[in-house]
Amino acid sequence: MSVESEDPPRAGPTTLRDVARRVGIHPATVSRALNENTRHLVNAETALRVSEVAREMGYRPNPIARGLKTSRSMTIGVVLPDLTNPLFPPMVRGIEDALSPAGFTALIANTDNDIARARSVVQTLRLRQVDGWISAVATRDDMFEEHVAPLVLLNRQDEVGTPAVVGDDRDGIVQAVAHLVELGHTRIACVAGPQAISTGSNRYSAYIEAMLAYGLELDHALVRFADSWSERAGAAATRELLDGGGEFTAVLAGNDMTALGCYETLGERGLGVPDDVSVVGFNDMHFADRFDPPLTTVRIPHHEMGLRAAELLLARIAGGDDESSHVVLPAELVVRRSTRAPNGR
Amino acid sequence: MSVESEDPPRAGPTTLRDVARRVGIHPATVSRALNENTRHLVNAETALRVSEVAREMGYRPNPIARGLKTSRSMTIGVVLPDLTNPLFPPMVRGIEDALSPAGFTALIANTDNDIARARSVVQTLRLRQVDGWISAVATRDDMFEEHVAPLVLLNRQDEVGTPAVVGDDRDGIVQAVAHLVELGHTRIACVAGPQAISTGSNRYSAYIEAMLAYGLELDHALVRFADSWSERAGAAATRELLDGGGEFTAVLAGNDMTALGCYETLGERGLGVPDDVSVVGFNDMHFADRFDPPLTTVRIPHHEMGLRAAELLLARIAGGDDESSHVVLPAELVVRRSTRAPNGR
Repeated sequence: MSVESEDPPRAGPTTLRDVARRVGIHPATVSRALNENTRHLVNAETALRVSEVAREMGYRPNPIARGLKTSRSMTIGVVLPDLTNPLFPPMVRGIEDALSPAGFTALIANTDNDIARARSVVQTLRLRQVDGWISAVATRDDMFEEHVAPLVLLNRQDEVGTPAVVGDDRDGIVQAVAHLVELGHTRIACVAGPQAISTGSNRYSAYIEAMLAYGLELDHALVRFADSWSERAGAAATRELLDGGGEFTAVLAGNDMTALGCYETLGERGLGVPDDVSVVGFNDMHFADRFDPPLTTVRIPHHEMGLRAAELLLARIAGGDDESSHVVLPAELVVRRSTRAPNGR
Repeated sequence: MSVESEDPPRAGPTTLRDVARRVGIHPATVSRALNENTRHLVNAETALRVSEVAREMGYRPNPIARGLKTSRSMTIGVVLPDLTNPLFPPMVRGIEDALSPAGFTALIANTDNDIARARSVVQTLRLRQVDGWISAVATRDDMFEEHVAPLVLLNRQDEVGTPAVVGDDRDGIVQAVAHLVELGHTRIACVAGPQAISTGSNRYSAYIEAMLAYGLELDHALVRFADSWSERAGAAATRELLDGGGEFTAVLAGNDMTALGCYETLGERGLGVPDDVSVVGFNDMHFADRFDPPLTTVRIPHHEMGLRAAELLLARIAGGDDESSHVVLPAELVVRRSTRAPNGR
């Protein structure tokens, strides 16, 4: 990664960039080496060398002036739809684990699935001059169209090729349906997620595809849509499903939060999981193994997704030519106790 | 709330504050009314009036210049120790619910219980010129001593009277011990939290106090300390407890995350909850009612704590004279299925 290293020499006080050029490392590394709070992130030998060169060149750190001069805030805006979903914190940790060694800090904004709040936080972070964005909220079209700083989507994708890091939704759903079919289920209902979100529509399409591939009947009475990725919406969709009168022995939920909503409604109606109805979720979010019963679900690599998104973003900030980057990480079914063979088998 | 409304009239272009003074409302409200992304947050009549007055006075919005002139970034730094703990997201929602109507945005930073990372994020947010701080991480002594922007502690307190909003740790623990005593337990172990954190030390002190109040024997073999508020640390402390050989029929865990660690270790050793050992947690974090078994715990009002902390902070930013404010919100025992009478009774 090299940033504006072709600047001509100039008069005036020695800058951080001057020191970086002399040592032959990235200015961010110099910044970290000269800041006692971040020095531990730098190789000890490098830190010593930076400190010596800075003294030789008469460099005097001035963090605010430095920020203005480099036009770098060394911050990344991370926009999340719902902090109460345990899917996101491990992704944030992955993001931070990639940003921290590069001297960047994540500023996290939570939108509570509210588009007005999302626009407002994006506006605020833009005024704070973040150097780039990782968004798990929406597509470029929705919020970022006027924005110039690089953007990477996380667990979301759009149709205009914005760089994105996602889990393999399609393969995950195929594995989940295969598991239910192997157990003997044929009447498999779907509590699908919001169709305006890529994970919601991709997983729903994959459900249809997998049902057809297994020669199972597609019955409209067996599909209902949750209007958000929440327990509340999952519970409501499951109520609609039960009230619709279609018969089923298993429910494929669009994610783990809506799967918890299924648990809730099935419990209210006196139906046991898995004795009466098997339930499969998606994400293998934190605590999924602790629920009653522990949830069979599709694991996506949360931490790695965050890490890869941040790496992709850092490469773009450094001027990498990868506008079309699209990273799909593998999904893996995790069988726990929320699924079993249907009654009567 | 009024901000610098006593400024004398001055020459130069009309400022946002001039418009606010004319309309008789807070400048933040004017800011929101004039920003199309936040206008929906303002009463429609007020927004119209602001827009008329701004036009009359020849006000031309310039967000960056405005930020520089008022020295307000309209952002609040929210420093959290561990995003993977479901205790914090509802607090963040409470914070945002108080900040949003005042035109402020929360910038959330996660420290992963790492003091070096905490110092680094505080430094970064300071450079971003946040107008105030809400910290659930540490005391003023640890990180904020050089900082001039107002600070409110959340779910933490220090000994120098930094404004703080906390739950009633002591009363919550007394209720938990009373519940176990009523069920017939006398050998009540404690998996205490980190003693450098106020919640850890307050709850441990309250345990000792309650045990003495009930005339129960204090046995050092029945106390072990988790070195962080995590499942891992709770599991490790419970292993130490079991290996220490003391006999007990119930465990009081310092919080719900360490209580989950107790579940894990007890399960590994073939001990059932609650049949062999009753477990009580603290916080009633999201999902506590979903665990196997659903956790008996002490509820503190997460959302309200966040809301009150943000209100306290906004009052201080507006110049309120409440340096010593200390808000203690009530705790309430929630009995679920992780506690029962001890075997043999």
